[in-house]
Amino acid sequence: MYKIIPLDKGLENVQGFYCGSTNVGLRKNSEDGDVAFIRSEVPCDVSATFTQNKFQAAPIKHFQKYPKNFQTDFVLINAKNANAMTGDKGVEDIDALMSKLSAKIDVLNPVMSSTGVIGYRLPLDKIASAFDAFDFNGKDSNKAARAIMTTDSFKKELAFKVELENGESFNIAAICKGAGMINPAMATMLCFITTDADVPKSDMDTLLTESTEQSFNRISVDGDTSTNDTVMLLANKTSGKYHKEAFKEALEKIMFELAMMILKDGEGANKLVTFEVKGARTIEEARTASVALSNSLLVKTALFGEDPNWGRIASTIGASGIACDDEKLVIHYDDLLIYDCNNRELDKVREDKAYEIMKKESFKVTCDIGLGDGTYTSYGCDLSYEYVKINAEYRT
Amino acid sequence: MYKIIPLDKGLENVQGFYCGSTNVGLRKNSEDGDVAFIRSEVPCDVSATFTQNKFQAAPIKHFQKYPKNFQTDFVLINAKNANAMTGDKGVEDIDALMSKLSAKIDVLNPVMSSTGVIGYRLPLDKIASAFDAFDFNGKDSNKAARAIMTTDSFKKELAFKVELENGESFNIAAICKGAGMINPAMATMLCFITTDADVPKSDMDTLLTESTEQSFNRISVDGDTSTNDTVMLLANKTSGKYHKEAFKEALEKIMFELAMMILKDGEGANKLVTFEVKGARTIEEARTASVALSNSLLVKTALFGEDPNWGRIASTIGASGIACDDEKLVIHYDDLLIYDCNNRELDKVREDKAYEIMKKESFKVTCDIGLGDGTYTSYGCDLSYEYVKINAEYRT
Repeated sequence: MYKIIPLDKGLENVQGFYCGSTNVGLRKNSEDGDVAFIRSEVPCDVSATFTQNKFQAAPIKHFQKYPKNFQTDFVLINAKNANAMTGDKGVEDIDALMSKLSAKIDVLNPVMSSTGVIGYRLPLDKIASAFDAFDFNGKDSNKAARAIMTTDSFKKELAFKVELENGESFNIAAICKGAGMINPAMATMLCFITTDADVPKSDMDTLLTESTEQSFNRISVDGDTSTNDTVMLLANKTSGKYHKEAFKEALEKIMFELAMMILKDGEGANKLVTFEVKGARTIEEARTASVALSNSLLVKTALFGEDPNWGRIASTIGASGIACDDEKLVIHYDDLLIYDCNNRELDKVREDKAYEIMKKESFKVTCDIGLGDGTYTSYGCDLSYEYVKINAEYRT
Repeated sequence: MYKIIPLDKGLENVQGFYCGSTNVGLRKNSEDGDVAFIRSEVPCDVSATFTQNKFQAAPIKHFQKYPKNFQTDFVLINAKNANAMTGDKGVEDIDALMSKLSAKIDVLNPVMSSTGVIGYRLPLDKIASAFDAFDFNGKDSNKAARAIMTTDSFKKELAFKVELENGESFNIAAICKGAGMINPAMATMLCFITTDADVPKSDMDTLLTESTEQSFNRISVDGDTSTNDTVMLLANKTSGKYHKEAFKEALEKIMFELAMMILKDGEGANKLVTFEVKGARTIEEARTASVALSNSLLVKTALFGEDPNWGRIASTIGASGIACDDEKLVIHYDDLLIYDCNNRELDKVREDKAYEIMKKESFKVTCDIGLGDGTYTSYGCDLSYEYVKINAEYRT
């Protein structure tokens, strides 16, 4: 078998990768960087999943101009400007930046990622000034992770060592950003995963898609989907080692834990709630109801208010359009039966227990529809005054 | 031709109808009633549209037990308890109440409507005590309209006289409640429309459905849909007069104006915003994008923050899944061009104009997709701290 061992810090754990950031003045009044890079000393295979928003931002269009299965050794990332809805000019701007970059350092098919306000051209000179400031041979994952934050309240980085039975090992690490606009079907989130595993490109594509579906596609902060969402996996193969099952588990683990970090950092959120819908006629119907729960404003405000009444949960399932029957529905909060057709009214004992559960930082709502085998789990958070404040004041 | 003339007050304008309310202690600390009635001295034809929530409340199931095209002369309405998710017992409770009612006054096929908390049985004795207190021959529309309020901050009643060319006339009036949980596809809203027009039952059914689609189905406060939504049209035909076109216009007008009153009373809402999407490939795609805009948390918080940036509007259209192209999209705030592919960045002049528009109590966002003829308009409001406060504290 194999072991997946958590490591301290982030991207610096993966051999052959360099990273860092600098502040070029996009982000005011902060010591954090606003332009970051991730670089590999040898060309990497790269797999990526992007936003399903029809208005994909310029960096995504730029990435997609490269031929299928291209290799890269450089990722440039900026905060404060999404380079979205900027048309062909937005893509040309990236090309212009990259030719300035290649005057400073040899790069192969460099790619870019952006997050920030929609509708403004990138300030090219400011961003290009980072190329003089970057320590291209540095390994400062902390600085890179902090540079890509927007409304995030904490930086997100993780790393694992995968130790195989024969003593061989490879590493995987990631930095990630995202706090608001998080929705099943991705969100304004950027995630960059690096590995030195000798993973074949075909496995990279398949496993990244599968793991995205199990992680970032299941979380919701506010039901909106941004123009810039990107999950990118870079493999430089330098360890020469690989084990598919172990790599798959490590990739899933790193992405799921990062997704939960995003949700915990949901704008103004105080609680992480798991919504498992089971017993639906189909997986699709389970998904519809589960996502409706994690997106419902009335459910989210009830979570914030720690209101144990199950009425809003039931009403949201009923409104989701899936087949359901109030005589068959059963709802639990953690292990507490909160509704079935024989227990429609909350007595004092159950109500008090429900209050205790709802006060926790995380708990699980399980809804058994009682009609079939369809099961789906999504993850949501509460909606507080703070969410409104952040989003009324933040210009995207 | 004909004239539609606004009248003072509400249901008392329609001949042969009586109404009123009393407080039986469901609503604490208030002088308003909590149980109301609407009664006709002769049997009425009745048409109704109900919630699309799969968990329809007991009063709706009770209504639907009557044979098709049944007549009624009595509507009983209570606040504070939705009688939803109460199973067969919830329907039996209504039957029990109605037999107590018929001991006090002759009624034909009485129907009921409820709004309030989900999951609790009706307190039958309390509600039945209203039958001793009701003034069955009173005409107090104000008291009836106030009794059905929940989180509403003002009562909603309207009445029109329809004057035909030959001097003949008939009247139409309505009371209505609703403030939160308002969504395209109805909402926790109750609306009772009375008329003395001699409208045929088949016209009642058709026109009520059409007018609901043009009014209550186009407004959104929070994207949720309740278990109890009801729009009911009662016609006692006592004027003996009818003109289809005039009646249609009056019905549409009364329902649209009530829908706008609900939206203005949206929980914590300060602004009424019209979202017109035109130029979509189909009406369905226009509807999808328009409803996505009126439901988007990020759009709603940007409205509250009076942020003129169009990025969230564009991003929401792109995320809605409809066909769209950033080179063809054109966005206006009222008459101000805020985005087209040649005007991607806001200059100071347009930004200042946009601020002025967004400060208004109501304005219009028009998005021309530029791909076809599909047009749809929906109506939304901003999302404020107050919404969160109301919904964190109110138990439904």
